[in-house]
Amino acid sequence: MRDPRYDILFEPVQIGPLTTRNRFFQVPHCSGMGHRYPEADLAMRSMKAEGGWGVISTQETEIHPSSDLSPSNQGRIWDDRDLPRLRKMTETLHKKGSLAAIQLVHNGIHTANRLSRIAPYGPSDVVVDVTDPVQARAMDKADIAAFRKWHRDAALRAKKAGFDIIYVYAGHDMTLLQHFLLKRYNSRSDEYGGSFENRLRLFREVLADTRDAVGDSCAVAVRFAVEELLGPAGLEHTGEGRDVVAALADEPDLWDVNLSNWSNDSQTARFSQEGYQEDYVSFVKSLTTKPVVGVGRYTSPDSMVRAIRKGILDLIGAARPSIADPFLPKKIEEGRIDDIRECIGCNICVASDNTCVPLRCTQNPSIGEEWRKGWHPEVIPSLGKPQSVLVVGGGPAGLEAARALAQRGAEVVVAEASQQWGGRVSHESKLPGLATWARVSDWRMSQLRQATNAELYLDSPLTADDIIAYQFQKVVLATGATWRTDGVGRVHRLPLPFLPSDAVVGVDDLLQKGAGAISKSGRVVIFDDDHYYMASAFAEMLVSAGYKVAFVTPSPIVAPWTEHTLEQARIQQRLMELDVEIIPLYQLAGFEGGELTLECVYSGATKRLECATLVPVTSRLPSDHLWQELQSREAQWADNGIEAVTRVGDCKAPGTIAAAVYDGHSYAQNLLAAPSDNYDRYR
Amino acid sequence: MRDPRYDILFEPVQIGPLTTRNRFFQVPHCSGMGHRYPEADLAMRSMKAEGGWGVISTQETEIHPSSDLSPSNQGRIWDDRDLPRLRKMTETLHKKGSLAAIQLVHNGIHTANRLSRIAPYGPSDVVVDVTDPVQARAMDKADIAAFRKWHRDAALRAKKAGFDIIYVYAGHDMTLLQHFLLKRYNSRSDEYGGSFENRLRLFREVLADTRDAVGDSCAVAVRFAVEELLGPAGLEHTGEGRDVVAALADEPDLWDVNLSNWSNDSQTARFSQEGYQEDYVSFVKSLTTKPVVGVGRYTSPDSMVRAIRKGILDLIGAARPSIADPFLPKKIEEGRIDDIRECIGCNICVASDNTCVPLRCTQNPSIGEEWRKGWHPEVIPSLGKPQSVLVVGGGPAGLEAARALAQRGAEVVVAEASQQWGGRVSHESKLPGLATWARVSDWRMSQLRQATNAELYLDSPLTADDIIAYQFQKVVLATGATWRTDGVGRVHRLPLPFLPSDAVVGVDDLLQKGAGAISKSGRVVIFDDDHYYMASAFAEMLVSAGYKVAFVTPSPIVAPWTEHTLEQARIQQRLMELDVEIIPLYQLAGFEGGELTLECVYSGATKRLECATLVPVTSRLPSDHLWQELQSREAQWADNGIEAVTRVGDCKAPGTIAAAVYDGHSYAQNLLAAPSDNYDRYR
Repeated sequence: MRDPRYDILFEPVQIGPLTTRNRFFQVPHCSGMGHRYPEADLAMRSMKAEGGWGVISTQETEIHPSSDLSPSNQGRIWDDRDLPRLRKMTETLHKKGSLAAIQLVHNGIHTANRLSRIAPYGPSDVVVDVTDPVQARAMDKADIAAFRKWHRDAALRAKKAGFDIIYVYAGHDMTLLQHFLLKRYNSRSDEYGGSFENRLRLFREVLADTRDAVGDSCAVAVRFAVEELLGPAGLEHTGEGRDVVAALADEPDLWDVNLSNWSNDSQTARFSQEGYQEDYVSFVKSLTTKPVVGVGRYTSPDSMVRAIRKGILDLIGAARPSIADPFLPKKIEEGRIDDIRECIGCNICVASDNTCVPLRCTQNPSIGEEWRKGWHPEVIPSLGKPQSVLVVGGGPAGLEAARALAQRGAEVVVAEASQQWGGRVSHESKLPGLATWARVSDWRMSQLRQATNAELYLDSPLTADDIIAYQFQKVVLATGATWRTDGVGRVHRLPLPFLPSDAVVGVDDLLQKGAGAISKSGRVVIFDDDHYYMASAFAEMLVSAGYKVAFVTPSPIVAPWTEHTLEQARIQQRLMELDVEIIPLYQLAGFEGGELTLECVYSGATKRLECATLVPVTSRLPSDHLWQELQSREAQWADNGIEAVTRVGDCKAPGTIAAAVYDGHSYAQNLLAAPSDNYDRYR
Repeated sequence: MRDPRYDILFEPVQIGPLTTRNRFFQVPHCSGMGHRYPEADLAMRSMKAEGGWGVISTQETEIHPSSDLSPSNQGRIWDDRDLPRLRKMTETLHKKGSLAAIQLVHNGIHTANRLSRIAPYGPSDVVVDVTDPVQARAMDKADIAAFRKWHRDAALRAKKAGFDIIYVYAGHDMTLLQHFLLKRYNSRSDEYGGSFENRLRLFREVLADTRDAVGDSCAVAVRFAVEELLGPAGLEHTGEGRDVVAALADEPDLWDVNLSNWSNDSQTARFSQEGYQEDYVSFVKSLTTKPVVGVGRYTSPDSMVRAIRKGILDLIGAARPSIADPFLPKKIEEGRIDDIRECIGCNICVASDNTCVPLRCTQNPSIGEEWRKGWHPEVIPSLGKPQSVLVVGGGPAGLEAARALAQRGAEVVVAEASQQWGGRVSHESKLPGLATWARVSDWRMSQLRQATNAELYLDSPLTADDIIAYQFQKVVLATGATWRTDGVGRVHRLPLPFLPSDAVVGVDDLLQKGAGAISKSGRVVIFDDDHYYMASAFAEMLVSAGYKVAFVTPSPIVAPWTEHTLEQARIQQRLMELDVEIIPLYQLAGFEGGELTLECVYSGATKRLECATLVPVTSRLPSDHLWQELQSREAQWADNGIEAVTRVGDCKAPGTIAAAVYDGHSYAQNLLAAPSDNYDRYR
């Protein structure tokens, strides 16, 4: 069934004393679960083993309380009390044919040790790189010896827990070994500072310690950031990044190479294409005989094959693609390429970890819920009896509900009012950089089109009368939301009375018509009180269309929530490059004679701003007129065979696309199930 | 022993069916522990019962997963599985003679439900008031009925767990009952929206539900914010704030009244004086016959007596003063007024909760460690054998180490190099608004002066030779830190080569000499890469001294870490009022001819800024020359009777005053103790 051109992806690869069954390698990635929700973390990783990943790695696992990222839910291997849950992880992964890797970490100056209250450790006396008013202290020789012992002990513990691959980690501007290496943090005058070889010393020693401790039966991997994208101020893949690989060459059993920091490593689709790290890491294989793994949001088997054939990588590393589709390898193996649920590169997953809760994914609603809800990304129990379901609305929530219901055996009809599938993603994916977001509807439509029990109708607006007359057992309303044009959001809680309707263009108009929605030629002012991606994407779009754009926001920076998706700096930089005038810390106070009055959120001081067109990006209202009408006509349901009417997604409560997909999926999962209180199994 | 003028504070007060032993009332406050670390929360509250507080309240306790503030560690009473730990709380408090109160909460639109993933509930379809891209949905009648049932069930559960006082909570702009009340969130057209009586309806109903459910044996308290400090845009104590009290008057058994939001309720000493809420809440007693509790950072028994005698309050509410000194009531009762460890009003405690970790306090190093480390705020085990200890340095770490060591029975000598006690707090307490910070050294000096086994020497700089010659068994170095003048901090990791020494005035100079440290008359540019209070306090000080001040920072706002202490908006507002020119998002790129070159942190674009004097507020270096020298002379220790040399506080790793006090205390607690691994009992 497998396309022979993908055979190469299924070749075994030797890694030190071990062999992995194929070239699919889930590199370490945070889960937002870690030591806090270990059963949930296990269930999530286990799904990937089932889905065919040859190697499954834990997230970074702290070796000592002096590396304490609380309240972030990292892994912990502080002492033997951590072993039982780690052993359960390795046993489960082994049973499913995968190798288990663990990424040991000491976070050095990248932690404030909020819980353990230990003064952080660093190469020199420097302030930590998080925002807490905390400084790290320069490690003396005793500290270095202690750290090496902690790392060695952790490696031994990891081996005892059954791990196959043990990482030595110097990456993401987050680890002590990298901090020692970097000139900007290391001002030591002893043999651990100064020259390149001195700054590399601790890394080299810990690598040797680890091989010595566990190298007999475990593979020792190095995760190393070859490039920081800081120019000469940082590590460069043409400079010391390369020198490190040359210096350590064949000492590790595996090189896992990437970009630093995290925002460079996990770039979103808005700012990079599949394979975006290749130019930086391709040198590595020329300096080592050991296998090399790298990442780059690979979701296409052709791209993977190319990266291997071109000698860039030996193993295809993945974090996000394995979250969006834990069964990616298996689908390639079974020749089911079209079934791959491709990562859209939105970094909602990263945002989950950054907000200290379990993984969420726009494409894969089951991620993070494998244990709490018992959800499987591919398998969903049959309903066991006939059910007819009408889904009104073909956006993310409606399509996911329909797809999962069809999978469960319901007779599903989806009616979409407009002439295209996808709802909001059909429009949002046309915004600059967001084309991959169309995958949300593309994948679901492709699945639905294969289903014999799903009928799909475009251009089919329905009234409550229609719905009642159709006599489906279940009615699911997924009618989306509309953006407000009255300014109501976080900072303005009441409608702004001064907005002239002829000068306001709403988000929905812009989404549907693009820049053509704007009829006046003068400056467009985007007022962003939404703080996620929409307003800045509009700014890009409108500048491309030739408009002069100002960006007014009560926030101090553009799109602050995108700090969680690691995009904020890139977004603000792009807007500055495009000459968008950014006016932070202002709200709206008036609009007269072609001028907005802006009011400082701190002082209340006002200023005027010329404005031909105002685009308020603030908040949404659910499009729930059908819901309201059907609720009011509940008395007619039974006579018309309707057992329940339910709303899902944005028409219930507007949120992210990920939340809509999750809500549609939840509906399908829960249909005919007994009410459950398993919400709290995370406690 | 008690001063009779404080007798009134020890009168019992009837609250509904119950009587509290005195007027000391620990109002609900967050602990950063909650459901996550219940044993720790219990041990902390229990200490207050021992310290004499008549009523001890839990923090806000979520009644349902649709009110889920994850990852913040709030209380939970979701279902019966929460009862065992809550029952343990009430039993412990009762045993120590206190009443136990629980603050039930539904956070309405103030939560994103990150963990439970339930769409938040609100009076109307509005965006949540946290930063997540999440909207709440308008509750329909079924939702309102469900919410009332959850609240009633929670009240019944709380009664079952043994709570005496059960709160109905409408405050801090954080609760559903307040959200329904406020016009800006409630746009309903049914009987729960529109008129005042309609917006009050849900609050009134839930109060009645609660009385009905548990009023037979429990007191039902209302916590209500009478004023929002938003003028007519919000609730005013002269308007609807008053109307609510008038409308509900004698319905609750107790009124707990305060300001909303949290930053108004828990104002720091920098912005308010003891008793700062009196003007707003004093009307309440005129409208009800029920007892009234209020807060205002009361640490002086005279202020407490005055508030009661003037008819403003019946019960003295406290959160922060009870954290700084859990034994405050007992000390008044025993006539030990000078022993009270007064809250300095710095809000490090609030910052702990805001950063999702257990409480920390500048004054009380034992808070949050009662369970994990077994620390008691008043009792510390005797060393059991003679120990001579030399403490070098009389700042926060040194004084706390000396105080606690003296309490343990050591023979302690403290040598301070300068002519005043307090180290950094002797200087920092002279900054605008920070006078209360002197309490850190004042309290410790007062304790040390009472000790017969502590000798205190000012004006006593010591060399390593001196220290070795003195032959103490233990040497504790608490020599503090110095601020860097070379620009090194977070954004500049390497010294700036272009700073002219004649135009740079360091933080330490300013601290020691005040504005007199500045010799030039032109503009002072403060460069803040510290992001806490120091730079903005300097700006205030220098404007008062007549300087024109610019405030340059790579951060987008002034003093961003003070968001955690709830001070940020007030600080930025004050600087704007003082005409400080704020230049955010810039770092330093050059300094020539009286002009700084500033570089945008996003784009790298530069601009010039006239600058006579530059004050870099970036980071510190430990003053560890004694430590370094004594380390290098370790061979001489034994011959001179020295068993150990230890550094504590800023000379080990510069941090907050709270961290220094904690570190000094830890040293004293751990002296002669076996090494312990109890760091991880929080898991």
